[in-house]
Amino acid sequence: MSHWSLVYLDYVPEEEGHREALCAVGNGYFVTRGAAAEAEADGVHYPGTYVAGLYDRLQSEVSGRTVENEDLVNVPNWLPLTFRVDGGPWFHIDEVAVLDYRLELDMRRGVYHRRVRCEDSEGRITQVNERRFVAMAHRHVAALELTVCPLNWSGRLTVRSSVDGTVVNDGVARYRDLEKRHLRTLATTAPSEDTILLEVETLQSKIRIAQAARTRIRPEGGSGDVPFDFVRETATADSRPSQDLTVDAAEGEPVVVEKVVSLFTSRDSAITDPGVEATKRVERCGTFEELLAAHVLAWDHLWKRFAIELGEGEGTRAALCLHIFHLLQTVSPNSLDVDAGIPARGWHGEAYRGHVFWDELFIFPFLNSRLPEITKSLLQYRFRRLPEAVWAACEAGYRGAMFPWQSASNGREETQTLHLNPKSGRWLADASHLQRHINLAVAYNVWQYWQATGDRNFLGSMGAELYLGICRFWASMTELDKVRGRYVIKGVMGPDEYHESYPGAETPGLDNNAYTNAMTAWVLAHGIEILDHVP
Amino acid sequence: MSHWSLVYLDYVPEEEGHREALCAVGNGYFVTRGAAAEAEADGVHYPGTYVAGLYDRLQSEVSGRTVENEDLVNVPNWLPLTFRVDGGPWFHIDEVAVLDYRLELDMRRGVYHRRVRCEDSEGRITQVNERRFVAMAHRHVAALELTVCPLNWSGRLTVRSSVDGTVVNDGVARYRDLEKRHLRTLATTAPSEDTILLEVETLQSKIRIAQAARTRIRPEGGSGDVPFDFVRETATADSRPSQDLTVDAAEGEPVVVEKVVSLFTSRDSAITDPGVEATKRVERCGTFEELLAAHVLAWDHLWKRFAIELGEGEGTRAALCLHIFHLLQTVSPNSLDVDAGIPARGWHGEAYRGHVFWDELFIFPFLNSRLPEITKSLLQYRFRRLPEAVWAACEAGYRGAMFPWQSASNGREETQTLHLNPKSGRWLADASHLQRHINLAVAYNVWQYWQATGDRNFLGSMGAELYLGICRFWASMTELDKVRGRYVIKGVMGPDEYHESYPGAETPGLDNNAYTNAMTAWVLAHGIEILDHVP
Repeated sequence: MSHWSLVYLDYVPEEEGHREALCAVGNGYFVTRGAAAEAEADGVHYPGTYVAGLYDRLQSEVSGRTVENEDLVNVPNWLPLTFRVDGGPWFHIDEVAVLDYRLELDMRRGVYHRRVRCEDSEGRITQVNERRFVAMAHRHVAALELTVCPLNWSGRLTVRSSVDGTVVNDGVARYRDLEKRHLRTLATTAPSEDTILLEVETLQSKIRIAQAARTRIRPEGGSGDVPFDFVRETATADSRPSQDLTVDAAEGEPVVVEKVVSLFTSRDSAITDPGVEATKRVERCGTFEELLAAHVLAWDHLWKRFAIELGEGEGTRAALCLHIFHLLQTVSPNSLDVDAGIPARGWHGEAYRGHVFWDELFIFPFLNSRLPEITKSLLQYRFRRLPEAVWAACEAGYRGAMFPWQSASNGREETQTLHLNPKSGRWLADASHLQRHINLAVAYNVWQYWQATGDRNFLGSMGAELYLGICRFWASMTELDKVRGRYVIKGVMGPDEYHESYPGAETPGLDNNAYTNAMTAWVLAHGIEILDHVP
Repeated sequence: MSHWSLVYLDYVPEEEGHREALCAVGNGYFVTRGAAAEAEADGVHYPGTYVAGLYDRLQSEVSGRTVENEDLVNVPNWLPLTFRVDGGPWFHIDEVAVLDYRLELDMRRGVYHRRVRCEDSEGRITQVNERRFVAMAHRHVAALELTVCPLNWSGRLTVRSSVDGTVVNDGVARYRDLEKRHLRTLATTAPSEDTILLEVETLQSKIRIAQAARTRIRPEGGSGDVPFDFVRETATADSRPSQDLTVDAAEGEPVVVEKVVSLFTSRDSAITDPGVEATKRVERCGTFEELLAAHVLAWDHLWKRFAIELGEGEGTRAALCLHIFHLLQTVSPNSLDVDAGIPARGWHGEAYRGHVFWDELFIFPFLNSRLPEITKSLLQYRFRRLPEAVWAACEAGYRGAMFPWQSASNGREETQTLHLNPKSGRWLADASHLQRHINLAVAYNVWQYWQATGDRNFLGSMGAELYLGICRFWASMTELDKVRGRYVIKGVMGPDEYHESYPGAETPGLDNNAYTNAMTAWVLAHGIEILDHVP
């Protein structure tokens, strides 16, 4: 076991949520939590798949108020793959005796492995091995392989492969009283013998999401070309299309099931329709092994650029590796053509609703020296929302551009201004949108990208406009304190979010927050240099 | 009259179609034909608005066959603006006596002007002046101003402003037997007192298109702030929402109507929903004059970069100006974030269905030396469709990438393989997809962009992959003729489209087309150099 692997040797239900986040697999376009393939959301397990920048707004009634929240949407779960023997109960890790367990996240290759040896209530002992990945080499593809080996039995083995469109956003306990259903099913079909297709749409933003799943079965070692006697039954009646594949399984002879999935949305470019593209893509995909080889090569290339070798012991190496791994699953070359920012928690779950705060400040320096094209693409996320930021500044009585503390789909301020205290039942004002230093972060990031790349085209086409718009904002927000003879900035919240107003003050915000003031001086000073470089 | 203006001093119904194309206004994101604002498609007039890269596929039954065509969609017409007096007939140029007429396309400022002095059947003489533009400074905005001056009458003047969602694709005579209805109406609403909103969706590609129109009325010289007595009636019952604004008009006192329109589609980035964005945008827009000032400034900046001064007489200057003007209406800084290529006829009409052929070969050199960011964005159109081109090559038995002769939404070959001869009623094979030189054009364009910019990031992130994929294709398509001791290329069609096969030959295509062979040699030779420059 090296720093490249995260390994768990026991199954602990209480830790599943945590492990699902740590063992998520993704490719910068979409991310899937490391939930057991056979599980549904049930308090222990929480399968979640999130597409970069795919949001939906819902209104909820909370204690007599209507609140609107914009969520990163939990899209249909492509994982479901389980089995049963002789018409018995479907395999579920919580319903069997776990004799041996090994969960490994192979970060070098970007592969999730789960190995379970278990015994069911009939005394049947089975080795269940699973491998899965979200393809770094194929933006719209993920794959899962399940190997079932009867250790002390023979019988009729039925494998069920499905896509679950009934999922909701239920991953965060304190959001649970809010509306959580973001999807409606548009169509459930079987475009070809081995493929099912689920098409859904978000309720408000009306983004269509299509997932096609191709499921094939073969004996271990078989290529799939040799005839293998099995029965396939397809069900497409509801929002969980499925295929059941039944074979005669013999003791000691592993059966391998390959599930290859393609995911497209109506936000993608170069498509005619997400359903058409998802179907076409799985039809054209090679085998699990072929996809895996390309995936591993893509990770190999990424690690060559991004690995940091410190040599200070396995603990440090492992931590660094884990952080870089999840960062690259959130943004990668697959993100280049996607309109998304850097969310606070990756696309790994629903915390902070997948909103974009100022975290890019800490991440861009890492990207700038390795693959600055990614930074540029992420700065475009801001540039596209510049008109909204200019409008926000104007509405607040300032000039220039005022980016929101929490940004999501269209760059509107997504920070709630009121929060219900669940204990007191009172609504409390939330002034965290006064963290105007987000604006400074955007300008700082433009400057850092420019310093790292010398990319004048960027400066001319968007960088300078972003930077100078932010300078104008600060120039209009600072005011001259005549007594001190110095400029001051009033009514902001610093990065220390625990201090949002003076004790007893009626209006929120602090004056002359050190971080904000220092960064403002820095940004304005460098603004003059930017002017010198605009083509 | 300078080379900056295209002026017509008479109204000639038979020439309207031609003039509509020449007087189209656009901003690189959408283009609107220069149809009379009061007109519908009727054989003389053909209002058409097209959004860059917005296609839809329809199947038609033609003489017992099902053919599928992908069309550039004629989206709802935002122009309709007309008037009537005392409840009489609505003004239409074909229903009045035209006393004086002047149509001017002001290319320096990107403004369409129409001035009509006319007399109706009641002897009322009216001066009708119209100005319109598709805002170069605001990608999603267009505006139209109508000034009505009663010259010999006073009366109740009603102006009708609407958005027409009943339009179909009917602009090309020989496509008229095919299915032509691409839109269905989703919603027709009035989000605020002075604004109507029409939301439609394309039938197959399910792209939602929202158009919001804000209509205001004032006396000439009035700012809109002074109270002005008028009645507004809004109708949103069908696919043509409208507002009627009625005032008392007095002889010699011009009444001015401003219509500001915003157009968003579900393909846009930085949106939550096109309807929300379109509504928000018109609410935030300034007056016609303010929008015009920003528009003229944007054109001024463009002309500073793009004008070609030859000084060889007004005729040459006018021709150059007209060509550059329409090119910049098809691709501009507004195209940078749009997934579209260079269509054969601009976004000015339905000829060639808005498909993308090899025309970029002739256009990119002009862009490369002036605003290469546009070329890069257009090469991205190809790069996003590289997987489809790789698949096409593979299906045809070749390696590498084979781009289609006609490309539209997802990069599938859109060239029809059979055409119905309307005279003989026979289906004839069309081998024009054998114009494999399209591939050479893409490679050549990559090279030219690289030469013009030295943009290594481009080369590393997409240019080299595009170029070398094309090289691989040609390497696999050429074969060694052992008798001659030379490589040959068989079964292609050259740029001369009139020769597609040898007389009496059973299979189409020619061997060793000079252009294709020479360009292939050129592309392969430079491929070696590309390798030297990949980071």
